[in-house]
Order: sequence, then C-alpha cells, then structure tokens
Amino acid sequence: MATVSYPSYFIRASSNRDSHDQNKQKLNNIRINGASSMSSMKPDTLSQPAGVVSTYNSFTSVNGNSITTEECRQNIPTKKQSVDPHRQGLIIEGGVGYRQTVVIRSYEVGPDKTPTLESILNLLQETALNHVWMSGLLSNGFGATHGMVRNNLIWVVSRMQVQVDHYPIWGEVVEIDTWVGASGKNGMRRDWLVRSQATGHVFARATSTWVMMKQETRRLSKMPEEVRAEISPWFIDKQAIKEDCPEKIVKLDNKARYMDSNLKAKRSDLDMNHHVNNVKYVRWMLETIPDEILESHKLSTIILEYRRECGNSDIVQSLCQPVEGGILEDGLKHKNGINLNGFSLASEVLEGSGLLCNFEKLPLRYTHPFQVKGEGGNEEIVRGRTTWKGKIPSKPITT
Amino acid sequence: MATVSYPSYFIRASSNRDSHDQNKQKLNNIRINGASSMSSMKPDTLSQPAGVVSTYNSFTSVNGNSITTEECRQNIPTKKQSVDPHRQGLIIEGGVGYRQTVVIRSYEVGPDKTPTLESILNLLQETALNHVWMSGLLSNGFGATHGMVRNNLIWVVSRMQVQVDHYPIWGEVVEIDTWVGASGKNGMRRDWLVRSQATGHVFARATSTWVMMKQETRRLSKMPEEVRAEISPWFIDKQAIKEDCPEKIVKLDNKARYMDSNLKAKRSDLDMNHHVNNVKYVRWMLETIPDEILESHKLSTIILEYRRECGNSDIVQSLCQPVEGGILEDGLKHKNGINLNGFSLASEVLEGSGLLCNFEKLPLRYTHPFQVKGEGGNEEIVRGRTTWKGKIPSKPITT
Repeated sequence: MATVSYPSYFIRASSNRDSHDQNKQKLNNIRINGASSMSSMKPDTLSQPAGVVSTYNSFTSVNGNSITTEECRQNIPTKKQSVDPHRQGLIIEGGVGYRQTVVIRSYEVGPDKTPTLESILNLLQETALNHVWMSGLLSNGFGATHGMVRNNLIWVVSRMQVQVDHYPIWGEVVEIDTWVGASGKNGMRRDWLVRSQATGHVFARATSTWVMMKQETRRLSKMPEEVRAEISPWFIDKQAIKEDCPEKIVKLDNKARYMDSNLKAKRSDLDMNHHVNNVKYVRWMLETIPDEILESHKLSTIILEYRRECGNSDIVQSLCQPVEGGILEDGLKHKNGINLNGFSLASEVLEGSGLLCNFEKLPLRYTHPFQVKGEGGNEEIVRGRTTWKGKIPSKPITT
Repeated sequence: MATVSYPSYFIRASSNRDSHDQNKQKLNNIRINGASSMSSMKPDTLSQPAGVVSTYNSFTSVNGNSITTEECRQNIPTKKQSVDPHRQGLIIEGGVGYRQTVVIRSYEVGPDKTPTLESILNLLQETALNHVWMSGLLSNGFGATHGMVRNNLIWVVSRMQVQVDHYPIWGEVVEIDTWVGASGKNGMRRDWLVRSQATGHVFARATSTWVMMKQETRRLSKMPEEVRAEISPWFIDKQAIKEDCPEKIVKLDNKARYMDSNLKAKRSDLDMNHHVNNVKYVRWMLETIPDEILESHKLSTIILEYRRECGNSDIVQSLCQPVEGGILEDGLKHKNGINLNGFSLASEVLEGSGLLCNFEKLPLRYTHPFQVKGEGGNEEIVRGRTTWKGKIPSKPITT
C-alpha cells in the first residue's frame, strides 16, 4: 500500500492493522462486540496539551510487525474512544452516536457568508468518518470495517437527502450529531443533525442510505453475518428526516432547460480513492442554476440518488430542468412575461399587481440529471432534485 | 449590510460594531493599546460544555443599538482573548502570536492522502483570520482593523511563499503558528509554521507580505498612524523562512509550454468579498502541470506575486513554463529523448545508463503567469513559481 516517505523518527509503536485501499469511499460505523469502554487509547503524545512537544525518541518500532509510517502518524484507534479532544468529538446516544463541534471556517462560506452546500456535505462526510474513527474498527482508507475488508467489501452511497432550515454563518459554532440505523435487510442508514452550539436551534438535517459492494466486481452484496455483528450494535431507530414514503425522482430524457456539457474532473476533484468524490458532483449540479434564482432564493432541500461511479476520465454533463406541474415552473421572468400554467402574463401586469413579488417567495424545484457520455448513450451517475425557498429580505435589526 | 434572515431568538446582547464589507480579503492582526488581558470575554453560552444547550431567552437585545443577527451569531470578540476552545486556538509568543491545532480532514486530501496546496493555503488563511479574531479588534468581514475601516482601508496581499518540507496526512494532528511583523514602512509580514502536534517536526513554513489599499480608489495607501498604533504592538522580528534576498520571478512573454485558456470563475470560487479568492488561482495554476510530473514529484515550494485583482467576470489563462538554465528544463521525457543543455539524448541511452532515474529525483522549477485577457493585451493577476522535488519511493517499513 502507498506510504509517504518520512524520516524514521516518525515511526512509533503500533499494532499491525489491515491496510486496504478501498476504491469507494464513505463510511459505516462499528463497535467492538461487547465493548462499552470509556477508556481512551489515545497515546500520550496526542493527549499532551498544545505546545508540549514530545521527543522523537517516543517513536520506536515493534519487532516483527510490518507497519507503515502513515498508520503511525494517523493513529487510527484500535479500540472504541469516547472523546477525541482534537476532533472535538464525543460519543453520544448511549454510546452509539457521535457529536462533533465545528466552527464554520472562512473558506467554507460563499459571498453571503453562509457555507456552500459542498462545504456542508464535506462536514457531513468528515463527521461520519470521525464517527467510524472513534469506534475502533476503522480500517485505513475511506471507512470500511475490518470485517468488510476481510470480505473485500466497500460501502457505496445510494441516496442522500439534506434539508437546510437555516444556514449557519462564518464563525458560528455548530454541533453535528450523526448516527446509523438499519435500512432494509442489507443496507445502512446514516443520519445527521446540525444545530447551533449556542442555542441548540436546528440548522439542517440529513439522511443517507448505504449498501455494500464487492470491491473487484463492483456488484452489490448482501451484508455478511460477520459485518452485521460488527455494525448492528450501533444501529438505533431514530430518523433525522421523517419520510413515510421517500420521494422518487422521475427520469428525464436528455433535454433540459439548462445544461453544462463536456465537464471533466480535475485532479483536485479526486479523493483518497482516486475517484471523483460524490460531493464534487454537487458543485457541478448547482452551477447550472441561473444567477437570478440564486440571488432571490436559497437551497432548502437536495435529494441525490446515486446510480453509478464517476471516474476521472469520464466526460460528464450536468442538466437542470424545472419540475413541471407546479404553479410556476421556474422563477425566471421570461423575456415577455411569465408562463403560468400555460397562460402567459406580461411582466408589467405581474409587477403592477405585486404578483411577481409573491412568486419570488414561492419554492422552486429542479430535477438534475448528471450523466456520463457513454458509447451506448448517456448514463446517469446521479439524479438530483433541489428545492429553493425565496430569501426573506435582509435588514439590520434595530432595537 | 447584508444580514441573514433569522428568528428573533437568535438575537443577543452585543455592542455596536462598525460593519464594513471589505472588497479584498485577508488579514492583519491587532491589539488593543495597553491590553495584556488574559481574561476571556467569551459569553457563557460559548463556554458551556458540548451538549448543554442554552435557552433562547439568553438572547436579549440592547436598546438603542443597531445590531445584526449575523454579528450576534458570529460573536466576534471586542476584547483580546487568550484561548478559544472551539477554534482550538491560543495566544502564544508572549501575547502576540497565535497557535491553532487542526486535524487534517478527509476532504482536504488528494489521492495520496496528503492535503492539496489549496487546502494548506485555506488553513493558513483560516488561522490568520482567527489570529485577528482573537485580538479583539476585528471588524466584520475579511479582517481589517477598526482603524482601517475608519480610514476605508483594506489589506491586499502582495506576496506569498510556502515551503513544504514534509506533507501531513489524513487524520494527522498539526499545529499552525502564525505571527506578524513589519515589512518596510507601510507593509506587514505574516508568517506561519506548520508542525506535527505529536513530535513538533516541521511540515511547512510560509511567509506573506501585505499592504494597505483605499477601498474605493483601489490605490495603495500609506499606513495611517492610527492603524500603526493598533497593529505595531503585535509585530515581532521572527521569520519562518530566512531570505536575504527574496527571489524575483522574471516576466515571461505570452508563450509557454503548457497553458489552460478561457478559464472563468465559477460561483463557488467567490468568497465573502464577492471576488475570486486568491487561493483559487492556485488550483488553476497547478492544473497546468503535466500528470507525469505529479506522479513522480511533489510540490516543495510555491512563490506567488500578486499583481491585480480578479473579478468573477474575468476570462483568465493559466500558463506554465519550465524554468530555463537548469540542467533539465522539464522532467518530461520527450518523444525522442530528453533535451540536456541543447544535447538530445535518446531515451534508451538514458534508461540504460540509469540517468533517467536520477533525473526524476532532480527538483523541477516552473514559472506560472496567470493572466486576464484585457483589451490592451494580457495583464498579469499573479506570477507564480513552483519547485517540485522527486518523490522518495514509498514502501512499508518492516521492523
């Protein structure tokens, strides 16, 4: 496996771990059978207060073990941890959930000082991985359990839904809770709740569904009993987003009102698994939304149905089509007015009556097919649905 | 100024601050004259342990002040702080420097599990801003002091140099120190040191130079005495990178071996100041480097000379030219061999003699003009220089 070159004083005692370079990222989470430990296995060097520097001599090697400097430096726990001061994480929900405190960083926000959806999805990925990290059964790589690695299995995400009620802002302190549950017989659900650390007020909720895939054949797999024994003790029956009947996104043909074609992944879009990270698709998806919509609206929900992987040589296209059947198909004023269930109203009429103002407050919905150009036609990588709420005019509050 | 819409229970007591939307980002840092306080002004709600949620009632408003919900939620300190538990930051260097502990996150790394240069620059920006945040004199926005806001001044970066000796890896805990010093009569230097939290070993060093600009006229300005009084108490004479004579990058004409043309900023490239963030240029700059170089080499130094701003409607081009005069202009094997000071050696000869292997270990240097297409020809936004070191073959260490 790949290691980084590093001076030998970075080597320290470590157990021999399965090292495995999964091709598909994302995570699960896990628990040592019967483990309910609150003890920390963090080495002394990591629990030292900031500013205290250990000597290089603390890095010694263990005879007979083949270890990599990478594993030593990452220091992935081999037993369950209850608190991680560096990640500002702790185990909650009676020992099976994870909470992390994060500050919204300057580079995570857009011009309106609120985090981009890409930043939010990155934080969800990060907290999910840290949940697995704390569990003690993370193999190196993008999050499979040791049992999964022994069975050559990886997790693949099949569905993700994020609902943003309010956006946090630059510098704000938020708490992200995440936990997992069963999804059918062979799947796993992972949910998140993002709240203000100061008030507990909910910013966003998210839910996702994961299934297992054979790494070599890329075919879906049942969950082996060995893996079920690892992860099922972590399952709880709690849903961040209540859905009696999850919304299905209807397939579109290849025509759409807005389209970005001939997109190709840049090197900076690749993740640890040498694949285009699924979060990156979202950036391309949202770039198709017209500026006028983004000025007056804010994304409130996104649903992503993942259908196939995207490689770094794939040429992709991002389509965007207003959802039909609503009162208003698209918040855009057309050149000569607005199309309202087939009746065209002149802009002047709408503006004079104040109707336009109200239309701008209506939620808008778009379908986003994200396709790769294949020999036999276009194949869908992701099918997305976004909902956008009208912005409430901002003004300073004078008290 | 822009505020986000938010329920009124998010309003809390706050002083009236100058709110100012700087057009150019980045920061300085500052100190209240005579302040040497170690006292924390953090409100109770922020020093509560994770999981304790304050009631909405703690958010009350102050009569007679015009405040924004945004300011309340950001909670930018109005007095110097010595410790920030959420940012994992503390004041060092006898009260004038700043140290922050960060964990390298899953989405900050590339396929080799080390952070991209863009991620490193983002972390430098973030820690610099948090340094100013802790100082107590940060105005809202991208980092000017209150004195600068009163004088309609913003900081602009004129030079940045980053030297990476070793790369941290995914999950590794690093400490980033940052501090400021004088640069000539009217400028400021900001330096950084990035180290392993476990061992203190240095990963990277960086230095940058900042000058002041009139916000409206976009002309450089002298440092007013009012501002000098704010920031000069923070200056220390300590350099992360020793340079007797900083390297100047020679101007190139518009020809280069590698070029990406017709680049245009995406919405996701814009920062809080509605400009293309200077970190984003670097992504475009490094995309011109050929894959073959990236497979065998790792960036060790980047120097960026900033020359003008880049707006979101600018069409830009990123050029890349191997630095002339070295033994080897470029590490690439050309079709029929390698050009060695004018003598062409066949690949077979090089490979047979083992020369090629050694060439791949040589540092490579590139000049990167980054230009906007103007009416009167191309104008330089940034002039960059990168140096790349040959990767040491990675292998597991068996002990």
